[in-house]
Amino acid sequence: MEHHTPRRRGRAALTLGAVLIAGAIALPGTAEAVGQLALDQHGGAQRAAGDQTRSVQQAIERAGAKNVILLIGDGMGDSEITIARNYQYGAAGRLPGLDALPLTGSYTTYSLTKDGADKGKPDYVTDSAASGSAWATGTKTYDGAISVDLDGAPQQTLLELAKANGLRTGNVSTAEIQDATPAVQVAHVGARSCYGPDTASCGTDALQNGGLGSISEQLLGARPDVTLGGGSASFSQTAKAGQWQGETLFDQAADRGYQVVSDAAGLTGVRRADQAKPLLGLFTPGNFPTRYAPTTATVGGADQAPVTCQANPARLSTDLSLQSLTDKSIALLDRDRGKHGKGFFLQVEGASIDKQDHAADACGQIGETIDFDEAVQSALAFAKRDGNTLVIATADHAHSSQIVDGTPPTSLSTALRTADGATMKVSYGTAGAGSSQQHTGTQVRIAAYGPGAANVVGLTDQTDTFFTVSEGLRLNDDLAALSRGARVDLSDRSPHRGERVTLTGSRFAGDRQVRVRVGGADLGTVDVVDGTAATRWRAERGTTTVTFTGVQSGTEATVRVRVR
Amino acid sequence: MEHHTPRRRGRAALTLGAVLIAGAIALPGTAEAVGQLALDQHGGAQRAAGDQTRSVQQAIERAGAKNVILLIGDGMGDSEITIARNYQYGAAGRLPGLDALPLTGSYTTYSLTKDGADKGKPDYVTDSAASGSAWATGTKTYDGAISVDLDGAPQQTLLELAKANGLRTGNVSTAEIQDATPAVQVAHVGARSCYGPDTASCGTDALQNGGLGSISEQLLGARPDVTLGGGSASFSQTAKAGQWQGETLFDQAADRGYQVVSDAAGLTGVRRADQAKPLLGLFTPGNFPTRYAPTTATVGGADQAPVTCQANPARLSTDLSLQSLTDKSIALLDRDRGKHGKGFFLQVEGASIDKQDHAADACGQIGETIDFDEAVQSALAFAKRDGNTLVIATADHAHSSQIVDGTPPTSLSTALRTADGATMKVSYGTAGAGSSQQHTGTQVRIAAYGPGAANVVGLTDQTDTFFTVSEGLRLNDDLAALSRGARVDLSDRSPHRGERVTLTGSRFAGDRQVRVRVGGADLGTVDVVDGTAATRWRAERGTTTVTFTGVQSGTEATVRVRVR
Repeated sequence: MEHHTPRRRGRAALTLGAVLIAGAIALPGTAEAVGQLALDQHGGAQRAAGDQTRSVQQAIERAGAKNVILLIGDGMGDSEITIARNYQYGAAGRLPGLDALPLTGSYTTYSLTKDGADKGKPDYVTDSAASGSAWATGTKTYDGAISVDLDGAPQQTLLELAKANGLRTGNVSTAEIQDATPAVQVAHVGARSCYGPDTASCGTDALQNGGLGSISEQLLGARPDVTLGGGSASFSQTAKAGQWQGETLFDQAADRGYQVVSDAAGLTGVRRADQAKPLLGLFTPGNFPTRYAPTTATVGGADQAPVTCQANPARLSTDLSLQSLTDKSIALLDRDRGKHGKGFFLQVEGASIDKQDHAADACGQIGETIDFDEAVQSALAFAKRDGNTLVIATADHAHSSQIVDGTPPTSLSTALRTADGATMKVSYGTAGAGSSQQHTGTQVRIAAYGPGAANVVGLTDQTDTFFTVSEGLRLNDDLAALSRGARVDLSDRSPHRGERVTLTGSRFAGDRQVRVRVGGADLGTVDVVDGTAATRWRAERGTTTVTFTGVQSGTEATVRVRVR
Repeated sequence: MEHHTPRRRGRAALTLGAVLIAGAIALPGTAEAVGQLALDQHGGAQRAAGDQTRSVQQAIERAGAKNVILLIGDGMGDSEITIARNYQYGAAGRLPGLDALPLTGSYTTYSLTKDGADKGKPDYVTDSAASGSAWATGTKTYDGAISVDLDGAPQQTLLELAKANGLRTGNVSTAEIQDATPAVQVAHVGARSCYGPDTASCGTDALQNGGLGSISEQLLGARPDVTLGGGSASFSQTAKAGQWQGETLFDQAADRGYQVVSDAAGLTGVRRADQAKPLLGLFTPGNFPTRYAPTTATVGGADQAPVTCQANPARLSTDLSLQSLTDKSIALLDRDRGKHGKGFFLQVEGASIDKQDHAADACGQIGETIDFDEAVQSALAFAKRDGNTLVIATADHAHSSQIVDGTPPTSLSTALRTADGATMKVSYGTAGAGSSQQHTGTQVRIAAYGPGAANVVGLTDQTDTFFTVSEGLRLNDDLAALSRGARVDLSDRSPHRGERVTLTGSRFAGDRQVRVRVGGADLGTVDVVDGTAATRWRAERGTTTVTFTGVQSGTEATVRVRVR
């Protein structure tokens, strides 16, 4: 573990009393910072140096970013942020990523009740699925929902809309990529546990039941340019229906043009990721191992000797840290330089702040918060270089951990030795030993940098973030308009019987797939790559109509064909 | 209890799928709010209407306020704010005061360890004394300290500095006025419990031990123009030393020119409060009764039927609500209209959010948060009319209460029926039944309106608030400079022996008291009223020197007198 010495600024100390201490007088507003003051001196704990009206004013840029990087610290409430700062940098220290974002506010995270007499009423403690759906789609929904509304209707996501508007897209997480936060950008299912074709809970979302398929299968159809995380296990499962029935999802990914990598070396070798060859990097069967080895909170635990967090020997190579994945994603997505080039939307999740908070594992959650902060640092550094990038960092909900003074009598607790060389007691009181600690319902911090960052200031709701991003990127959500002008061309409009004809749909920007029909025959769906979808057809005698229907927009394009 | 229906704005709902729903398409950025959408509709939970870059920009005004109103919700962390909002206005509702402050950030609240090997190191959970001292003086100190530093040295407070710079001052609380938050502006003692001359814990701070006196006695010397709150009990105590030895503090207050009121009618009758006749309104012997009757959290309590908060029959007249006291204070302090008139500094505390959180009393803390929010509304309304007032609302530290989904197994909990008609579960897990729940160490929200409000944006520390206010008001903290030019005049410079001579010190702006000596005789201290202090002396034979020494600035002014 590294400890950093906080940098401090302040003013000369003044002492008051019957006698004036000579030379210690300074006029506020004109006084200069006198350098490194001790924390107990007047001004020694100050974080700001002088009036920041101008710097805040300068941080406000008109909305209208080319790129957006949305970073989600799962379960990272203000308490979790403070715990990590205290531990790693000291109470007067600074998280170099999160604490450097210039514009700040809070947002509400409640979800809605799905069933019963309270249907549609607020549920005051959200889960990651409902909260993620809220910022991904702008629609409040129920716990467990992945970008479907209260009635199960799919809602368009930021990633889908960004892609439909011609932007590059990325989705990164330290969790299995089917976990709620990454899933909300690429899938629409009624139950978040619907990971793969083998998952029983998929119900009507399963392909064999006429649904859109499991999260993993929908992810392949969403086709972000870059997808990086854990969760390879589900991709070894075999599709139960549809055109890849009987194939594993890994085989399906290869069929659909994906570059699939599974380790740091593989990732390093990827130089390009786009719609023709999207990148799917899955580095663990499930969630990533954490940065710090776990600690176990117990009743009375904070009365034990304070612990120092230890490196987790199971941690992945730092080439696969959240920061490294963020850097790699940005490098792959940022291909058209300049303000008017093709921009990107990238979501980055630090997933296990939440998971270790559930486990009452103080070191675990701290390490994940520090990892997340490093990803924020990378995003911010890029945005500063780029000048046209909005960076937003927030949490999906708050969590259980609290910093306490005394050891609570029945809650689980742990004492930590911090960077200050002092003891911090962390308590978990929402579940018993061995049970999962609960999310909490408090509003959480949201912070931002770049064009449109002012939209996080004050009190907003999680659903506002959808509009901040979609309006900031000027995303048109009218898929029919985006696929307007769609057409079908044939490699030969008068083929002879038995000839292999290439059918090409183009200008289907609003769609991710098109369904192809020739006369009464359904040839299945074809992926749209940069607006274009092509398939082959063996010509049969007669005059018939070739129809391409955009699966997402409903747009139809037809052409008549007469087979000789 | 009133419940308000939240106003909602949003956009048309969009439905995605294979078929496009005609007429439901809107372009983000151009779409108009379509009025009252249900919470489960796309955009239905949105709080912002369109891009707010411009409105945030407009909320930023250059630092340099004429007046500052600093409102402290004691123990009002983000969780306490959210609990009150959910209960009173619904999850999608809005606290009309707190949620209307346009510029927002977080600040750190840690204190410092006083003794032992960890002396000077952060103490991650502050109490109200150390935290109040931090914003009142800009100096971090130890738990229990009232505006003294780690070594016990008094630190100048915002109220004292404001007064020394010619501003009017006010101090309002729903607690006993000796409680830490109001005390930090007017007193300097090593132990917060040093309420009155009878308090044993005063130690060396007691007058009879050569100290500055108890908090109540120092309050009389600080002489704010307006002091309103509870805590009359300590004023019935009798001074043990000094020039009012043997008198009650109430008698002392009268001697020193205070108008003392004890009920709503008395307060209504006060038309003017200034240095000549400062106002001391003490309406209860101890803390104010709360707005809502208390609820008791128990282990498993949130599994009981949800409760609706009931009015507390013991509550004071609404003429003495925190909002009414805030309105009255503003009316008394705002006497010189116009940008260049004499401004004021007013601190307002909602004290019992903290106290009821300590008691695991959900309705209690909610009612106090709502009361506090009403005071914020008044401050904000005045600031908007006035145009030269900075309003800051924040907490001194966070607290125990958490919104949970399930009833925790060992923590105390209560279920509440909210304005949404839904059930909210509130948990207290930092202490057992009958014990005091603990403060917590998370960073808390700070929000502001008016000139200099941008200084709360981002991450600051509690001590930054001292500088935001003192620099915003351009307070000179050089007391010697403020008392420069001090002089002494006599009603007769050649009096005859036995004549009663009036000794007048003037231009002692930097001082609250002067000590008067004639030759070797100490005539005691005299209150400075608007820079002037006068006393009477019976002339004795000989030539001697009259010396006025500013108690706070150390400035000396002398005059020779020859008695005939």
